Amino acid sequence: MDSKTVGILGGGQLGRMIVEAAHRLNIKTIILDAANSPAKQINALDDHVDGSFKEYESILKLAEKCDVLTIEIEHIDVQALEKVQEKFPKLEIYPLPETIRLIQDKYLQKLHLIKHDIEVTESIEVKNNTENDLAEIGEKFGYPFMLKSRTLAYDGRGNFVVKDKSYLSKALEFLKDRPLYAEKWCPFTKELAVMVVRSLDGKVFAYPTVETIHENNICHLVYAPARIPDSLAKKASILAQNAVKSFPGCGIFGVEMFHLTNNELLINEIAPRPHNSGHYTIDACVTSQFEAHIRAVTGLPMPNCFTEFSTSITNAIMLNVLGDKVPNKELETCKRALETPHSSVYLYGKSSRPERKLGHINIVSSSMQDVENRLSYILNGSEIPEIKSNVKPLVGIIMGSDSDLPVMSVGARILKQFGVPFEVTIVSAHRTPHRMSNYAIEAAKRGLKCIIAGAGGAAHLPGMVAAMTPLPVIGVPVKGSTLDGVDSLHSIVQMPRGIPVATVAINNSTNAALLAIRILGAYDSKWLDEMNQYLLNMETEVLQKAEILENIGYEDYLTDKLKK
Amino acid sequence: MDSKTVGILGGGQLGRMIVEAAHRLNIKTIILDAANSPAKQINALDDHVDGSFKEYESILKLAEKCDVLTIEIEHIDVQALEKVQEKFPKLEIYPLPETIRLIQDKYLQKLHLIKHDIEVTESIEVKNNTENDLAEIGEKFGYPFMLKSRTLAYDGRGNFVVKDKSYLSKALEFLKDRPLYAEKWCPFTKELAVMVVRSLDGKVFAYPTVETIHENNICHLVYAPARIPDSLAKKASILAQNAVKSFPGCGIFGVEMFHLTNNELLINEIAPRPHNSGHYTIDACVTSQFEAHIRAVTGLPMPNCFTEFSTSITNAIMLNVLGDKVPNKELETCKRALETPHSSVYLYGKSSRPERKLGHINIVSSSMQDVENRLSYILNGSEIPEIKSNVKPLVGIIMGSDSDLPVMSVGARILKQFGVPFEVTIVSAHRTPHRMSNYAIEAAKRGLKCIIAGAGGAAHLPGMVAAMTPLPVIGVPVKGSTLDGVDSLHSIVQMPRGIPVATVAINNSTNAALLAIRILGAYDSKWLDEMNQYLLNMETEVLQKAEILENIGYEDYLTDKLKK
Repeated sequence: MDSKTVGILGGGQLGRMIVEAAHRLNIKTIILDAANSPAKQINALDDHVDGSFKEYESILKLAEKCDVLTIEIEHIDVQALEKVQEKFPKLEIYPLPETIRLIQDKYLQKLHLIKHDIEVTESIEVKNNTENDLAEIGEKFGYPFMLKSRTLAYDGRGNFVVKDKSYLSKALEFLKDRPLYAEKWCPFTKELAVMVVRSLDGKVFAYPTVETIHENNICHLVYAPARIPDSLAKKASILAQNAVKSFPGCGIFGVEMFHLTNNELLINEIAPRPHNSGHYTIDACVTSQFEAHIRAVTGLPMPNCFTEFSTSITNAIMLNVLGDKVPNKELETCKRALETPHSSVYLYGKSSRPERKLGHINIVSSSMQDVENRLSYILNGSEIPEIKSNVKPLVGIIMGSDSDLPVMSVGARILKQFGVPFEVTIVSAHRTPHRMSNYAIEAAKRGLKCIIAGAGGAAHLPGMVAAMTPLPVIGVPVKGSTLDGVDSLHSIVQMPRGIPVATVAINNSTNAALLAIRILGAYDSKWLDEMNQYLLNMETEVLQKAEILENIGYEDYLTDKLKK
Repeated sequence: MDSKTVGILGGGQLGRMIVEAAHRLNIKTIILDAANSPAKQINALDDHVDGSFKEYESILKLAEKCDVLTIEIEHIDVQALEKVQEKFPKLEIYPLPETIRLIQDKYLQKLHLIKHDIEVTESIEVKNNTENDLAEIGEKFGYPFMLKSRTLAYDGRGNFVVKDKSYLSKALEFLKDRPLYAEKWCPFTKELAVMVVRSLDGKVFAYPTVETIHENNICHLVYAPARIPDSLAKKASILAQNAVKSFPGCGIFGVEMFHLTNNELLINEIAPRPHNSGHYTIDACVTSQFEAHIRAVTGLPMPNCFTEFSTSITNAIMLNVLGDKVPNKELETCKRALETPHSSVYLYGKSSRPERKLGHINIVSSSMQDVENRLSYILNGSEIPEIKSNVKPLVGIIMGSDSDLPVMSVGARILKQFGVPFEVTIVSAHRTPHRMSNYAIEAAKRGLKCIIAGAGGAAHLPGMVAAMTPLPVIGVPVKGSTLDGVDSLHSIVQMPRGIPVATVAINNSTNAALLAIRILGAYDSKWLDEMNQYLLNMETEVLQKAEILENIGYEDYLTDKLKK
């Protein structure tokens, strides 16, 4: 695709997944890292460099073979990189060395973001690593506060929670000899993350806002999208994009942030590379974070919406696979994932070691509930996931009384004829009000797409159910023994502004079922096609009758019809 | 994942994509083919075998290092494979050598399928390659008929159309010295294909039925799903599954078939390996054909529905990238694909040569129309694809007359408030009947998910539109100057069985809009969440009013309200 050769500093799993994306575009990659590292395993084409991304000599060797250098880890020797850049002025390095330098030192990173009006957690530099200096910070921030190493910290290593004064000496013991800074305690409700890719022309594209869940400071799960209101997700996305705009150059960035109890968003830290919180993009998004990165650093096209979910109904969870205490026991989790529909396993070619990141599992489905059920099977193996998700009912038929069943069953037969999975039950607004609430509230979660409610007389059921579910509710007025059904019709159709009921003709549950199928068809072309065929069949039927009537004359036709 | 090492006979693009899938599961693969072949390029882990999959010595070398052997091409030396099997009785070989032998010889393949009651194109063995023998076949089959090489034929090489008697000598000239058979001419309307994977326990799983479009005998496009009725797709799937059931062993099979003008389905040929018609599975399905194959041959779990589309609204087209006459000019097509949202490029690490299969492009979207628009941009570069598919209107608001606008605009404001893309126009049933037909017929194709139609008096518009679209139609009865709006209500709601209109209260276009959003929310959780929030807001509003009323008393409340 591109004649440029890309050198990658670091050959871990992130490098491996960059190489996989590059292979698909025929882009040459050369890896600098120890022999047989995960990224090197899957690239036999090129003459890799065995060595360290912290040594000038090795970086120089890599640069000699490449047009572009990039990184999969930020803990590289920036000075060496700059020396190499001087030696090869035409060499492109993304992210820019100055960006890597800023980001490597978490305190400088914070100062940089503050300078660009980006909200971050409040921080103070620790000038001297003494109890006195820390006690002063404790005075200012109050307890607890976070003491952090400015450099070389990842997966929570290099962080210490100073719970009160008595922890000061322990903290210094734990982080001695490292450059330190302190962060004010951050009472967050959720941790969010956004992958942002920046192209060479300065445009930024954000992947969906996700939610990360850590265990022992290591990313355990990622929920995509985050389970937060849309407005907040958008706010997080804009914050992340603004942060990434502040770094010139190009490439992908992982932006981690806190959502605080007071609804504020603060950036925690930024990684100038593909990120664990973006692994879900391999299965859930149009283009993975790894391909986005390789496109950015080689100047390949970056269309709009290539960072979006593949469909508007995507829900995904990523589960990290960490090494078990018993070597290879984590593979049992992976096997369960292979047994689970709509889940994919990615292993990194690393040997099993406790707590080591060995792979990840992506689970994708149209409902988050579904994804969580599958996750629970993969994690615990206890419950069997619902294998045939499509036998779950899509339409619920409810009625106030079994006396409505003769009318409502006609609609049920239509659904059966079309092959739509559905359920039928009795829910009375006046006699089982709590059952009605539960039914309405849980309908969407259970996967129903639409509810058909039949009722006669006062006919409150359709409107009351509509008041407690965001799903479309179809009302069938059932004709009673005294009035003409017009009472039910008016009761069902004349809903106040705010709560609609889709009302059909009196006793016409056929049309209610057909309307339900049309609603399914709005998004699922299978049902749209079926409905088109149904309309066509009705047309053909009438045309045939017309032909017979014209052929034998209306009088004979009438006689025949009366005979039947 | 699995401790078995898999040897692959053949290192072309199919082998390469098998290796990619194996990498993700930490499954070791070793390739037998020429040095630097596409599959070897992406596997630096193992000690590959340089040589030919047609030589005993090379296959033996490969077998010595492996627990399982599989193929990416059927033109291998089966006898050699059987000798190797004798030498290593514990070696697993999938597909089974006997299956490869049957399939290698297209005439034996046909006899085998006929023996198992599988419908195939009618065929006769050519006993002697003489004009006399061929003329006899011409007598029997009539002209034109197909003359085909029994072995070593692919991408149309080895086929000859015998148009009439005068072509007999040309045909023999073209296919001389090859073992031949003849096929009766097959007047097909479409070519269909189904990928089927068979697990060791004999279970088969079918990927969706797709449609293949050939140019110069080479696969050009694959439409997934095939643009055929569901019932036919199912029939094709069952035929393919039955065919694959007839071959013991395991692995993936590509089944190509013809759909004839008389609606019959006949199997054309079967490939015992991943297949060009299954490349779309990488992006459109839960698990790719390559991972399915590697799982099958290593005995890893095969859950239900892992071969299904990722979502029920998946539509995909695969475009093969063939080498241009001008070397590397085909990369322009690939660049356009990179610019195109929802499309992915796969290159195989091969050098450019005219007509050579160098890669493929997958385009995936929720509507086939969208996919085709994007394809047209990728192929021609002439039209710019619709980049922001989500600004296309999802809801259409129509009304019989501009006098209905004051009522209908209230609903439009609701859609605007929710951020739902919509359109508003005038369509009169009685004054513009043809405009109405066009609007109704094209609505679904244009991406509308639902239509809101307002009408007063005789109020025919909602019902007439519903009669000509499979989409859900919401009717708003508009109150006229003479009757109370009950005339329109009854006219809209009392539709005959077969054509439903979702009717809301008189003049209540607010509820029509809210119902439209609920319909969108049935499949798109974004709108479901918004609707939940809306219901919550309404609740909060009333609770606040209740609180004020309780605090200040109902009399002051009333006075305040009257003042406003």
